[in-house]
Amino acid sequence: MAQDNLTAMLYKQKDLKLVQTPIPEIRDDEVLLRMDCVGICGSDVHYWQSGACGHFLLKEPMIMGHEASGVVAKIGAKVKNLRVGDRVAIEPGVPCRSCEFCRTGRYNLCPDIVFCATPPHHGNLARYYKHAADFCYKLPDHVSMEEGALLEPLSVGVHAARRGGVSAGQAVLVAGAGPVGLLAALAARAQGASSVLLADIKQSRLDFAQKMGLETLLMREGEEEASLVQRVHAALGTHPDVSIDASGANAAVRLCMLATKSGGVAVMVGMGRPEQSLPLAAAVAREVDVRGVFRYVNEYPIALGMVASGQVNVKPLVTHHFSLEQTVEAYETTLRGEGIKVMIHVQPRDANNPVKFQAN
Amino acid sequence: MAQDNLTAMLYKQKDLKLVQTPIPEIRDDEVLLRMDCVGICGSDVHYWQSGACGHFLLKEPMIMGHEASGVVAKIGAKVKNLRVGDRVAIEPGVPCRSCEFCRTGRYNLCPDIVFCATPPHHGNLARYYKHAADFCYKLPDHVSMEEGALLEPLSVGVHAARRGGVSAGQAVLVAGAGPVGLLAALAARAQGASSVLLADIKQSRLDFAQKMGLETLLMREGEEEASLVQRVHAALGTHPDVSIDASGANAAVRLCMLATKSGGVAVMVGMGRPEQSLPLAAAVAREVDVRGVFRYVNEYPIALGMVASGQVNVKPLVTHHFSLEQTVEAYETTLRGEGIKVMIHVQPRDANNPVKFQAN
Amino acid sequence: MAQDNLTAMLYKQKDLKLVQTPIPEIRDDEVLLRMDCVGICGSDVHYWQSGACGHFLLKEPMIMGHEASGVVAKIGAKVKNLRVGDRVAIEPGVPCRSCEFCRTGRYNLCPDIVFCATPPHHGNLARYYKHAADFCYKLPDHVSMEEGALLEPLSVGVHAARRGGVSAGQAVLVAGAGPVGLLAALAARAQGASSVLLADIKQSRLDFAQKMGLETLLMREGEEEASLVQRVHAALGTHPDVSIDASGANAAVRLCMLATKSGGVAVMVGMGRPEQSLPLAAAVAREVDVRGVFRYVNEYPIALGMVASGQVNVKPLVTHHFSLEQTVEAYETTLRGEGIKVMIHVQPRDANNPVKFQAN
Amino acid sequence: MAQDNLTAMLYKQKDLKLVQTPIPEIRDDEVLLRMDCVGICGSDVHYWQSGACGHFLLKEPMIMGHEASGVVAKIGAKVKNLRVGDRVAIEPGVPCRSCEFCRTGRYNLCPDIVFCATPPHHGNLARYYKHAADFCYKLPDHVSMEEGALLEPLSVGVHAARRGGVSAGQAVLVAGAGPVGLLAALAARAQGASSVLLADIKQSRLDFAQKMGLETLLMREGEEEASLVQRVHAALGTHPDVSIDASGANAAVRLCMLATKSGGVAVMVGMGRPEQSLPLAAAVAREVDVRGVFRYVNEYPIALGMVASGQVNVKPLVTHHFSLEQTVEAYETTLRGEGIKVMIHVQPRDANNPVKFQAN
Repeated sequence: MAQDNLTAMLYKQKDLKLVQTPIPEIRDDEVLLRMDCVGICGSDVHYWQSGACGHFLLKEPMIMGHEASGVVAKIGAKVKNLRVGDRVAIEPGVPCRSCEFCRTGRYNLCPDIVFCATPPHHGNLARYYKHAADFCYKLPDHVSMEEGALLEPLSVGVHAARRGGVSAGQAVLVAGAGPVGLLAALAARAQGASSVLLADIKQSRLDFAQKMGLETLLMREGEEEASLVQRVHAALGTHPDVSIDASGANAAVRLCMLATKSGGVAVMVGMGRPEQSLPLAAAVAREVDVRGVFRYVNEYPIALGMVASGQVNVKPLVTHHFSLEQTVEAYETTLRGEGIKVMIHVQPRDANNPVKFQAN
Repeated sequence: MAQDNLTAMLYKQKDLKLVQTPIPEIRDDEVLLRMDCVGICGSDVHYWQSGACGHFLLKEPMIMGHEASGVVAKIGAKVKNLRVGDRVAIEPGVPCRSCEFCRTGRYNLCPDIVFCATPPHHGNLARYYKHAADFCYKLPDHVSMEEGALLEPLSVGVHAARRGGVSAGQAVLVAGAGPVGLLAALAARAQGASSVLLADIKQSRLDFAQKMGLETLLMREGEEEASLVQRVHAALGTHPDVSIDASGANAAVRLCMLATKSGGVAVMVGMGRPEQSLPLAAAVAREVDVRGVFRYVNEYPIALGMVASGQVNVKPLVTHHFSLEQTVEAYETTLRGEGIKVMIHVQPRDANNPVKFQAN
Repeated sequence: MAQDNLTAMLYKQKDLKLVQTPIPEIRDDEVLLRMDCVGICGSDVHYWQSGACGHFLLKEPMIMGHEASGVVAKIGAKVKNLRVGDRVAIEPGVPCRSCEFCRTGRYNLCPDIVFCATPPHHGNLARYYKHAADFCYKLPDHVSMEEGALLEPLSVGVHAARRGGVSAGQAVLVAGAGPVGLLAALAARAQGASSVLLADIKQSRLDFAQKMGLETLLMREGEEEASLVQRVHAALGTHPDVSIDASGANAAVRLCMLATKSGGVAVMVGMGRPEQSLPLAAAVAREVDVRGVFRYVNEYPIALGMVASGQVNVKPLVTHHFSLEQTVEAYETTLRGEGIKVMIHVQPRDANNPVKFQAN
Repeated sequence: MAQDNLTAMLYKQKDLKLVQTPIPEIRDDEVLLRMDCVGICGSDVHYWQSGACGHFLLKEPMIMGHEASGVVAKIGAKVKNLRVGDRVAIEPGVPCRSCEFCRTGRYNLCPDIVFCATPPHHGNLARYYKHAADFCYKLPDHVSMEEGALLEPLSVGVHAARRGGVSAGQAVLVAGAGPVGLLAALAARAQGASSVLLADIKQSRLDFAQKMGLETLLMREGEEEASLVQRVHAALGTHPDVSIDASGANAAVRLCMLATKSGGVAVMVGMGRPEQSLPLAAAVAREVDVRGVFRYVNEYPIALGMVASGQVNVKPLVTHHFSLEQTVEAYETTLRGEGIKVMIHVQPRDANNPVKFQAN
């Protein structure tokens, strides 16, 4: 077994370093993974820049990384679902398996879930990482390691579409054209939505979305709310059955509450400010349900099915590539808001097609 | 047929008068009703005092009354479900029967619903009133006319409990101990809730609730939100699976968002101010769903079943009685906030037990 | 207005004739339709051959036709959703709008529904026909009249997929590769199923299905049930989350009960013999739910959305074309089991591309 | 620690003996229980008489018992939910916590569940028994050990009522008045059913049910099916929204399929013969869903809530009492079909009120 275990450790706010850590020992129900692709998420940048994300606070040094794929290097004595050499996507949260939430099929709400790179739990941006075997999903040969890593944000999108109950024939509005908004829009389409409209305040993001085949609408700063709602209805040709806010911006949260069809659902993925001024009565008096999204639950297999069957093409989202050694540079790129998804390659990308670790 | 059709007409703000109107002609699918009991609702008082309720504005004189029961005096040619002499509860909203909402079982959201005493539609506080026969529900002999009239607010409570998905074994918090809060609490219990806690800022309301066998909690002005949440959890011995706000007060809406168990449901019956400062993230990040209530849909038969089978006893709610001729006095009593439910008797209450039209 | 109203009237068993009937007078909420395309369904052939279908018996002469599209020729005084000249698909059942089923969004179960070409109600295989305006759906310009007529069987397929709760990422088995089975398979795919397997005992049907891009499995006569189940699991790579029987054949009903994943759903579209020997315990002891399909409810708009958005391509299903005058010939073709869907054109198919009324 | 661990071991068909076995060693997440009450279930008698139940076959000697309560005698190092001395009800199946079924909240379908007294797993009819701590539920002081043991069959009844979606205002038919049928009826009522009708072929069982306050209907042998259905509808005053078969008898399964309201649910608790002749079309053509029940899932807490809050009174079900030493006599009593529920007391019933181990 190799001894090198280069690891991206966040020591404290703005102090992210590559260091050697011991290769972990596995338990009977765990696998050791030789990590491959690890994407960078907005929350990663939050921890790095501020030492916190929501009510989670960085108190001890923490290994980063939670959007990841790897190759099984070793299996525990009781592992039956995987073999050494299997390429896997890693669902980063392992719940307690015992509480009311775990038992009722909502393990994402488990208060004792161990979630990668959420204090006080380490992530998987390292050469080697161990994980519960049953939260690793074997990738078919034709699904790439990058796609494996992207199952994480795609699962958020799938959870959003499922929480909204998106079904065949529906019209869906997605507010916020970042990676999660894009993936929620693609997931909504894969669940049968007849029309999906992606709204954002940045034209560049919408340009990208259009390249992915999505219809878009530019939210103009200072626009009257009623006018924006009207433009959404006009663009969709109807009121959206489901609206998904993937931004957390107050304007977008309000738009979802106001534009959704009576009796429909407004899904909140972005959390936004803790206190917000909201037109709640305008939603609930029309029985528009407001439903939140916390990570995902049982959606990794669905996301994998969508990618493997070709229903969803996530590949174009990865706009930048870096090696593990270039981690800080990769984080800085994400911080500058460049591109859509920045991917860190723990292993060389491809022997025959030597990696150029830079924007593509 | 009698010629007297004394009618409570709201001419404009603060101008409620008893006048004679023509006895209506019925269509083939309608019945003429000799009205009996008509309760007074908060919205009635709003129209009377301000000429408006929410976004509904009084523009023409309007007959009041929508919580009502009566006796069938005449039936249309095609009416099959009723006979002359039947005692009925009247569901006050008759939808278009054709739009998407009507077809999908959510007729309460029908934009063309004709709803009693909601401008521009007349209500039924009169000697005679006509209504769609299929929105009249025959009362069993042992269910009183007062109970028939109370099916209206009870249906709101049942709709709230059903929107919340209240089911066997659950813990339920209801905020607001007015008639709708009380009835939502009773409906939640009838749907199997193991424990129901009713919270309010007025001790007098809670005293009344306790007499009806409900557990209560006093919301103290100026109390820290976290402390109030903790007291709710302590009183229930757990976090509520479902919270129902029946007040519209910002403090109560916030309480429901904060106190509900992760993955639970916060139901909003009271609408409150159009713009409110809300801790939305604290609810949606825990996947607490926020669901509104607009009137009721398919709940009259359920409410009638609850009353007829003895699951719910609504009788104690009626604290004041007036005759049709005393309508203004009855409205003034409601405006002063006296008692719980004020009932107007269009017919003498009981021949053998001569009515004393005053508080009992 | 033209006086010609050539009409396909089934006088009694095996006595189908073209006769002139009066052009119907419309009511205020109805439209008069100049009929265009009318497909032939298995039930039509049953009535023609046996004078009955299920428990419906032909007692009086009945106009045939219920899979239809037409052009609005005249509108009633209160019709707002349509204009003269609109091309529409016709949902053939108009419910009572008043019973419990109509009010709760399950109008397909309305006992008083008036359904085209189901005794004692006439169908629409005639030059002119009148219908409730709100059960006519305007077709976008790019959706053809043939597609409009095919919304009827597609709605059955959509209802089957929705009754099964087919959702993203699922594996679905459809037994029976006739028109309804094909359309159920396409609907399942449009609702996000990752894999759909269509099984039948006729290779010719499977060949057709393969041309439509569906995966297929040949059911061999005399095959052991366990072996067939195993082949289904092998072909799907998993146990089907949802199975849909579209044949009514006992072997297919049994297959759906046995092959479905524990906790999944077996949907019965085909009704089959009234009494069947069934391995019910093998399904219910694994909590495989068995759900029936009766026509469709609220699915015409979804089916239209699927066709209009390109999610489902129904065009290839129409394998034979006949004129109204050739109705008996068209029925004979269907009876011989030729092709998939036989379409009768009440109007000339295309002025510039003169119709050749024969198999294409 | 006591050394006596008298244990009821089924060696093979009809060979049930009391023997000494070692007191089990616990793991970190387990508790050792001093057993108290253990009820006898129909399946226990099946194993004893035939060495099999359904497809489960007795191959090795097996300790009997799965409807049980006990007192915590020792706790594992990681147990937090219990203390020594706690009185607990024991949910007898401990699932794998890892498979798809466990993760989606349907752990009753887990293929690797370890379930008491289901081959090859031992039960808990012994002085001492160890169990996963999180599948033990602490009983409030006012809930007796007998009630704790009865939570097992009550959970089956609750699962049946929940699978049926029984809700407020509904009419429910239960076929089969054994312990599970009685408990399903009580659970349906606790979930808000307005009327519940219990049908059986034995008048003695119905007499017992009446004493528990349930309405009953005698199924007469040789009665025409249509007549029986009519009597059910007449007795309920309506068609049942939900029917629950708790017998497995073909006549009862058929009754549930035929009598249930269109669009309703027929729940199958009893499994009955593997192959049955069934009028499936009569159910599915009316969209009556057929849903099975396999044990229970997440229902122990609900059942406990029902008992603790007084919603359901299970006490009268226990008609016979025996000591552990009298196990064979207790089984023989059950085999003779005497009474309703036979309870084995592993500990003396009450020091002050010396137990008389005989029918009460």
